[in-house]
Amino acid sequence: MVQQRVSLVTLGVADVARARRFYERLGWRGQELQQTVFFQAGGLALVLWDRAKLAEDAGIEDTGGDGFGGMVLAHNVRSRAEVDQVLGAAAEAGAVIAQPARETLYGGYAGSFAAPDGHVWEIAYNPGFPLADDGTITIPDFGQS
Amino acid sequence: MVQQRVSLVTLGVADVARARRFYERLGWRGQELQQTVFFQAGGLALVLWDRAKLAEDAGIEDTGGDGFGGMVLAHNVRSRAEVDQVLGAAAEAGAVIAQPARETLYGGYAGSFAAPDGHVWEIAYNPGFPLADDGTITIPDFGQS
Repeated sequence: MVQQRVSLVTLGVADVARARRFYERLGWRGQELQQTVFFQAGGLALVLWDRAKLAEDAGIEDTGGDGFGGMVLAHNVRSRAEVDQVLGAAAEAGAVIAQPARETLYGGYAGSFAAPDGHVWEIAYNPGFPLADDGTITIPDFGQS
Repeated sequence: MVQQRVSLVTLGVADVARARRFYERLGWRGQELQQTVFFQAGGLALVLWDRAKLAEDAGIEDTGGDGFGGMVLAHNVRSRAEVDQVLGAAAEAGAVIAQPARETLYGGYAGSFAAPDGHVWEIAYNPGFPLADDGTITIPDFGQS
């Protein structure tokens, strides 16, 4: 059967250099190859590529929507203060804060921003989802099916 | 600075049970908590949640586009044959093949499908991006900035 994993998340962007600058202003370091930027992000890679090429490559007709597409990336951190720090860094780097940080129903604290090209990131502190030193997240056994 | 990682990828769906069945037909096993399904996927989690709730939670106005949103998830495998197998399994589970598998410019082999709700997955064999036994992908040093 199909292994449970995600290898790459590719963001289609209008301007690869601009998008790269955004992530580099957050402190990320990427590599560019053939107008495509790869960021090693834990066990997967976040990739920036021209949106039209991405759609063509995937055989998708791009109806020109925004960057939501019913998909949100989350970056979990280890404290409420770190949520505020990351949202602040993202805003300084050019993101639009979509949801200011606030307490969540699950006993955590989270906010979200739209990166250039509208891709949505949630920055969350969730005490129920432990993060290993390397950032790996583990979903606990909920005791449910 | 902000660590280079993605903790969760949340897919907003019209029907959580239907979306869960799709991934379970591929052999994935998830856990549901409060109408949200979590699949441990390597060092991150793939999450299924109601699309309207996801947009509201993220502070995003959902303009009702498709599941593309300029974002594609990739699942890399270890051989051309495995690409064909996974695409076949996805089609049987109800996906629409968007790009039949074909040789790629980088010397690999890949195709893509749209899952229920339109989220796009590429299934790729890329000999240049090694996969560890646990599925972790490593971007090699391209020798470029």
